[in-house]
Amino acid sequence: MTDPNFFQNSGPFNATELAQISGADIAGASKPDVLYKDVCSLDDAGQTDVSFLDNKKYKETFLTSSAGLCIVRPNILNFAPKYMTLLLTNDPYKAYARIASSFYPVKTPINSISGRSFISDSAKIGKNCTISTGVIIGKNVTIGDNCMVGGNTEIMAGSKVGESCSIGSNVSLQCCIIGKSVIIHPGVRIGQDGFGFAPGAHGHLKVPQLGRVIIGDWVEIGANTTIDRGTSPDTIIGTGTKIDNLVQIGHNVNVGEHCFIVAQVGISGSTKIGDFTMIGGQTGIAGHLKIGSSVKIAAQSGIMRDIADGETVCGTPARPMKTFMRETATLKKLAKTKG
Amino acid sequence: MTDPNFFQNSGPFNATELAQISGADIAGASKPDVLYKDVCSLDDAGQTDVSFLDNKKYKETFLTSSAGLCIVRPNILNFAPKYMTLLLTNDPYKAYARIASSFYPVKTPINSISGRSFISDSAKIGKNCTISTGVIIGKNVTIGDNCMVGGNTEIMAGSKVGESCSIGSNVSLQCCIIGKSVIIHPGVRIGQDGFGFAPGAHGHLKVPQLGRVIIGDWVEIGANTTIDRGTSPDTIIGTGTKIDNLVQIGHNVNVGEHCFIVAQVGISGSTKIGDFTMIGGQTGIAGHLKIGSSVKIAAQSGIMRDIADGETVCGTPARPMKTFMRETATLKKLAKTKG
Amino acid sequence: MTDPNFFQNSGPFNATELAQISGADIAGASKPDVLYKDVCSLDDAGQTDVSFLDNKKYKETFLTSSAGLCIVRPNILNFAPKYMTLLLTNDPYKAYARIASSFYPVKTPINSISGRSFISDSAKIGKNCTISTGVIIGKNVTIGDNCMVGGNTEIMAGSKVGESCSIGSNVSLQCCIIGKSVIIHPGVRIGQDGFGFAPGAHGHLKVPQLGRVIIGDWVEIGANTTIDRGTSPDTIIGTGTKIDNLVQIGHNVNVGEHCFIVAQVGISGSTKIGDFTMIGGQTGIAGHLKIGSSVKIAAQSGIMRDIADGETVCGTPARPMKTFMRETATLKKLAKTKG
Repeated sequence: MTDPNFFQNSGPFNATELAQISGADIAGASKPDVLYKDVCSLDDAGQTDVSFLDNKKYKETFLTSSAGLCIVRPNILNFAPKYMTLLLTNDPYKAYARIASSFYPVKTPINSISGRSFISDSAKIGKNCTISTGVIIGKNVTIGDNCMVGGNTEIMAGSKVGESCSIGSNVSLQCCIIGKSVIIHPGVRIGQDGFGFAPGAHGHLKVPQLGRVIIGDWVEIGANTTIDRGTSPDTIIGTGTKIDNLVQIGHNVNVGEHCFIVAQVGISGSTKIGDFTMIGGQTGIAGHLKIGSSVKIAAQSGIMRDIADGETVCGTPARPMKTFMRETATLKKLAKTKG
Repeated sequence: MTDPNFFQNSGPFNATELAQISGADIAGASKPDVLYKDVCSLDDAGQTDVSFLDNKKYKETFLTSSAGLCIVRPNILNFAPKYMTLLLTNDPYKAYARIASSFYPVKTPINSISGRSFISDSAKIGKNCTISTGVIIGKNVTIGDNCMVGGNTEIMAGSKVGESCSIGSNVSLQCCIIGKSVIIHPGVRIGQDGFGFAPGAHGHLKVPQLGRVIIGDWVEIGANTTIDRGTSPDTIIGTGTKIDNLVQIGHNVNVGEHCFIVAQVGISGSTKIGDFTMIGGQTGIAGHLKIGSSVKIAAQSGIMRDIADGETVCGTPARPMKTFMRETATLKKLAKTKG
Repeated sequence: MTDPNFFQNSGPFNATELAQISGADIAGASKPDVLYKDVCSLDDAGQTDVSFLDNKKYKETFLTSSAGLCIVRPNILNFAPKYMTLLLTNDPYKAYARIASSFYPVKTPINSISGRSFISDSAKIGKNCTISTGVIIGKNVTIGDNCMVGGNTEIMAGSKVGESCSIGSNVSLQCCIIGKSVIIHPGVRIGQDGFGFAPGAHGHLKVPQLGRVIIGDWVEIGANTTIDRGTSPDTIIGTGTKIDNLVQIGHNVNVGEHCFIVAQVGISGSTKIGDFTMIGGQTGIAGHLKIGSSVKIAAQSGIMRDIADGETVCGTPARPMKTFMRETATLKKLAKTKG
């Protein structure tokens, strides 16, 4: 059961309501009177819980699950336990996301500005914002309506934050313009100097970093991620892009819309990335490259050249997935016969 | 000499006392009247310092060291400088740890709650806790006896911290239940949303993250490490597991007891790891895997499949150490002859 | 145009002044009366902007740039657009750095200690320091003249900070001695315990970490980077070394002078690195190694052996760049013919 110390349940819902919320079709056991009280993993779900199956790895768990209602693809119908009510959809994970969001709606800010926050007289705070204890908001900062700012976060002079943003605790923001409905998790650092030096035999000369960081709407940025400001053009993160924890994004990087950037990725300065591109965890991308749209980059890859739209690449140096697999198999075979 | 500005010395001790503290046996030069005043590296140690040898790389340094007393394995006895008093033990590093801990015992908290901390009325703080300046403790938080919480740390609503925990500065804790004697270093982020989205052609839908983070007793968590809360099951770190700096642990990950997770490792969502497993630095582990107990994973490995108990693996994709070495050698040879 | 909300322009300058500032020679179109008002990238520059060309990737952009003045190498003179004033130098990036620093000089601290900072009575703060809101400065801390300390940063007991240092927000410093003119970006953690345990079959024994962190003059440390204190010797970062974001530096590491350490590098305990060495992003270096001076390590390398002065290495395990390239090519060929 979801822990009520942390999450407030807005249920229950019956199957008809859940079908409406999720856009899925009811099938399987008909139990119109049952009220479903919570969402739960297949392992732990009981008769009044909603669960989902979207990864064939968990099919065995599904077959013995006690979940009262389960969201599945249509082709699962014939295999499902007879006691289970089903919601059929081609995208069970999305349907689950909608249902879980109905049980546990996102907390909206309450109008509350801590007397122990420190807000510059010239800053403009929108309506209905929650500003926590220890928050520091600098000169000429603008914050839109319905924002939440977590404890001990600092937003430095001149930065702009759009409406409905949620900013975690212990965050540092400077030289940035942030869209609406952006989620910034704790410990994120945005807008500090990029790593720019003119190297020299007697020491390295610091190059002023004169750009900003521009963050589009609906972006999410994971805990302790760092995004440096541009050198002169800006560093840009496009609308809807989701960035995981501990990611490094260098100066002048331009990430398109709706990309996924998984944990611990590093993107070097001035690289440009298209839309809907997925970058696996711990991947490193060199500077001054053009990575296309809808590119898929496997985890731990090392990207040293431009990548065209739609390519799937893997390894260091990154190559097409097929080539990588064949090379790995070839080396294995050779090592056995000649090693 | 250990810097007295930072560390308070509880010595001196004579050789008999040090033998008792460490469980090692006295050998070598007999100097019953000498009082040993500090611990020190082999390089810098003098006649009243205690040092140790546990890595054959440092044998040369040992042979010319001026250390008055040295903790070594029994087989070193014949090589040791004649002027040196020895403590013989099969585990010199553990003996050193005990002796160093006697010279410099862990600081215990003093009963002190800063007037500039911000503690919710409904929070419960145990006896003899040190709560520093700028700390924020939310509604219904419970903190056990003898805890220390560093400056500007936020512990959000409902979280529980067991007794004798030490939490550093600028930490963010939410949705978590933490055991006793846990050490959390500065900048750690625990309990924020995992990276969960139902992808879509017009944007990605956020999946509510409804689990918690459960941390066992005696766990240590390094600076700026991030541990996301579960999606619906919990994210779990077992008793005695030690996690280094800048590690990323995804939602629903379940780490067993007494593991070592070295710096910058990333563990993807829903992966399960056994007990006493060692994961080398910068290793990446894919999601939904089962890694056994007493597994050894070399640094920078990429784990894409389940690993059985006791295996030692290496490389990307990870393979047994022997195979990795043979493949590396084969490629080297082939490149020379055919390149 | 550089955003005046964030950066204050000290221009304009004419070509003669810019030549003096940069040490470069005027050539190309003669426009002695033009006042240059800003620096800008080649893409966006207009007739009163200064830009530079130092990467042949951007030659096409240069040829169609509207920049009024451009800093280039002498061999570019013949290709340059006729309307452009040029500054000729063998090091355009360094000349640009000087000019950009003249347009936008580093902000100097103002004498201002926030009434909402928390400074121990025994701490000594130099002249003309800016100490922001929420800063905590512990017992016997010493801070030199002309320092800036960002919001909600904690500097713990006994630490020393030299003159003219700039420390960002949400930083945690302990057990450290920091030189002059050091820049520490937000979220940096310095001086926490290293990852030291004597492993055991029933749990791992913590080894006291009794050293310090010593940071030389002119060092720069990127956001969310972690530097552990030594075990007994100190962890040392030499004068002029530049460290990027999210880097991990283990206990007892000794980095020489004027090194570059790019983002997400991890350096394991007790490794010693020479001067002017460059370490590419995401590289991992094992413990107890000796890496020479003027070494170049490619991004994502894995270093498991000592490296001599002046070597250029690549890959995991790291090998000379030439060997790496040949091995990669050999495997590619073999996979095609035998796969």
